[in-house]
Amino acid sequence: MKKTNDNTFMSGALDGIVVLDLTHLVAGPYCAMVLADLGAEVIKIERPGGASERALEPFVNGVSAFHLTLNRNKRSVTLDLKSEKARAAFLKMASQADVVLENFRPGVMEKLRLGWEALSAVNPRLVFARLSGFGQTGRSSRKAGYDLVMQARSGLMAATGFPGQPPTRSAASVSDMTGALSCALGILAALLARERTGRGQVVDVALLDSLVAAMSSISLLYFATGKNPEQIGNRDTSTYPYDSFPARDGTVVFGTSGDASWASLARVMGRPELAGSPRYRHIADRLKNQDELAALIGQWTRGLTCAEICARLDEAGISCAPVLNTEQMSADPHLAEDRGMFPAVPAPGGGRFTVTGPHIRLSETPPSVRTPAPEAGADSEAVFARFGLSAEEIAELQNPKPAQRP
Amino acid sequence: MKKTNDNTFMSGALDGIVVLDLTHLVAGPYCAMVLADLGAEVIKIERPGGASERALEPFVNGVSAFHLTLNRNKRSVTLDLKSEKARAAFLKMASQADVVLENFRPGVMEKLRLGWEALSAVNPRLVFARLSGFGQTGRSSRKAGYDLVMQARSGLMAATGFPGQPPTRSAASVSDMTGALSCALGILAALLARERTGRGQVVDVALLDSLVAAMSSISLLYFATGKNPEQIGNRDTSTYPYDSFPARDGTVVFGTSGDASWASLARVMGRPELAGSPRYRHIADRLKNQDELAALIGQWTRGLTCAEICARLDEAGISCAPVLNTEQMSADPHLAEDRGMFPAVPAPGGGRFTVTGPHIRLSETPPSVRTPAPEAGADSEAVFARFGLSAEEIAELQNPKPAQRP
Repeated sequence: MKKTNDNTFMSGALDGIVVLDLTHLVAGPYCAMVLADLGAEVIKIERPGGASERALEPFVNGVSAFHLTLNRNKRSVTLDLKSEKARAAFLKMASQADVVLENFRPGVMEKLRLGWEALSAVNPRLVFARLSGFGQTGRSSRKAGYDLVMQARSGLMAATGFPGQPPTRSAASVSDMTGALSCALGILAALLARERTGRGQVVDVALLDSLVAAMSSISLLYFATGKNPEQIGNRDTSTYPYDSFPARDGTVVFGTSGDASWASLARVMGRPELAGSPRYRHIADRLKNQDELAALIGQWTRGLTCAEICARLDEAGISCAPVLNTEQMSADPHLAEDRGMFPAVPAPGGGRFTVTGPHIRLSETPPSVRTPAPEAGADSEAVFARFGLSAEEIAELQNPKPAQRP
Repeated sequence: MKKTNDNTFMSGALDGIVVLDLTHLVAGPYCAMVLADLGAEVIKIERPGGASERALEPFVNGVSAFHLTLNRNKRSVTLDLKSEKARAAFLKMASQADVVLENFRPGVMEKLRLGWEALSAVNPRLVFARLSGFGQTGRSSRKAGYDLVMQARSGLMAATGFPGQPPTRSAASVSDMTGALSCALGILAALLARERTGRGQVVDVALLDSLVAAMSSISLLYFATGKNPEQIGNRDTSTYPYDSFPARDGTVVFGTSGDASWASLARVMGRPELAGSPRYRHIADRLKNQDELAALIGQWTRGLTCAEICARLDEAGISCAPVLNTEQMSADPHLAEDRGMFPAVPAPGGGRFTVTGPHIRLSETPPSVRTPAPEAGADSEAVFARFGLSAEEIAELQNPKPAQRP
């Protein structure tokens, strides 16, 4: 790691950390993206033709929006790891890197003779991060794993949605995200351990494990009571009102934590007497009679716009929000202006493309979007040279001439 | 940080990192739990009477299952930070700690005169991690934020669920989890930066930002096409079959990625001719005719059990799973036996309580559940003494006598 006592030159917290990123699709590239946003030098190593996320729709002037979003801040080299020359070049790079990150099916790296034995032999300080659907060990480890499958097997789908409806998938690839963040966390923990021990190690993160861990606050209901969490729509098992309600121009959500915030809600509704009613006075009463209470509250919300309802609830300090679609969310001034969550990067063929930016704020080493996603192999020659490959070796790897950055 | 070149004594990757944990409820304690699982020494600093998650149902022999799950591996001291003596004691501890973690409403730490100015004055190497609903800056920063509100405002609810159904909340507190993991990630990045710079900094993570970032793989659809992601149940916009289907004894999910895996699915269904049909041959055809294809596949799945369907799909290498409830998930032998995801901790009043265990595997410094969640203030005297407070100072803090561990 580059040593400096002057962070004015730091591009980020992870400045000097070199990551060889062998990942494809979504979870792996997202994990590497988070590290790149935080300042790591992430070198994406793609098969000739490019990693598979480059084929994911939709396209912006022929380039995948997934690639444009997930691969910003990275450099790209192409290598066919099945060839002996490419394998030797990769090992030469690994001997000088801090992290190798991969999300192949378990066993693939071993088949390429690039397992931990081979990698640690050339660099015992290396952190070898392995992100997979079901983990490196266990009877399901070799199975293919889509996020849909993780949501089903984790118990999340069975508890999501409305009574009488089918089990429901969360629209976000939740397991890809919990897995990617957990893998990045494991990598940084291993780098911190290395500061003490001088040695690297293997990080094994499974999308399923990470989603199961993220479910702990609902699975504990089962562990404590033996009752399975059921589909309860947008409600909560422990308090009411805490729900979505129809407004004149859409849907709002708001929640109360206890009898006091319920009383202020009743006042905002112009129905203060409800707070004292024996049917609604205490949480247990409101949970018991939540259907009729939902109807009463709906009578109030139906007559108002989301903005009117939230203005009144904000004033009373009651947590609330309109249900926003993606267009409305991305125009939310708190997110777009104040938090700067949607930077634009140069788009292929000119213009700009909006991406979701870094979300982990560090006061002294702020994360940033510095470079757009590169074309496959755009940095091959420069990167191979930087890792000490000779002109002949580089020529032998027969990479396409570096293409122009978009 | 404790220096050693022999990790046989290391309890984990973060051994020697001291975290003062001022958090309450779910996201903050979960973030501190991940650090404790990884070996950090996490000292939970609670208001007299204990942090608010101790009041969350359900209870195990009178103790909150949230507390038992989220506060394992931590020590507990009680301090009323509004008192000058307690504030002085806290600053003395902060001067010797690596991390202070808090999830109060922005402004509360400043009101306690424990903002970054006060903390960095006693310890410029300190990492000050601040987890909040909407972040430390921005027009919404002072609002209360429940996970329900984050799911509504992030655009997640609007895209989740079935057409014609209301916007749907994911049953897991997704923003609590993405926020907690992101905050832990920011803390470790700041600790790594400190290895170079010798200085600490402020980490600012918002639950809303973290969920918006986790939504990037669906919001990019809007940024690329201007079309809002809509409710499509358990399906996918880019491929079909990828859905949930009714089985004789429940619901199964499975997905195909391209024409080849669709052809093998058709063979498994005993309908190889479907793969060649002009109505279903290519992805575009199958997306266009997905309703009738769903019906055809449903005819096949309805006649079989989840186990029968998954056995046949596994054999064909098609990603699949039964939709499991929490009870079935926690009994999944891959998770429970092979991955060891559900360790038991001593339960209050005897016996054992099952918790969801660490999910980030590190080969040389494995995370672990070492100690059960402590009673409020159980470690006050020992911890205060360890930070160099005198017997008088400790007595003056008037903490309850350390209670017995459960």
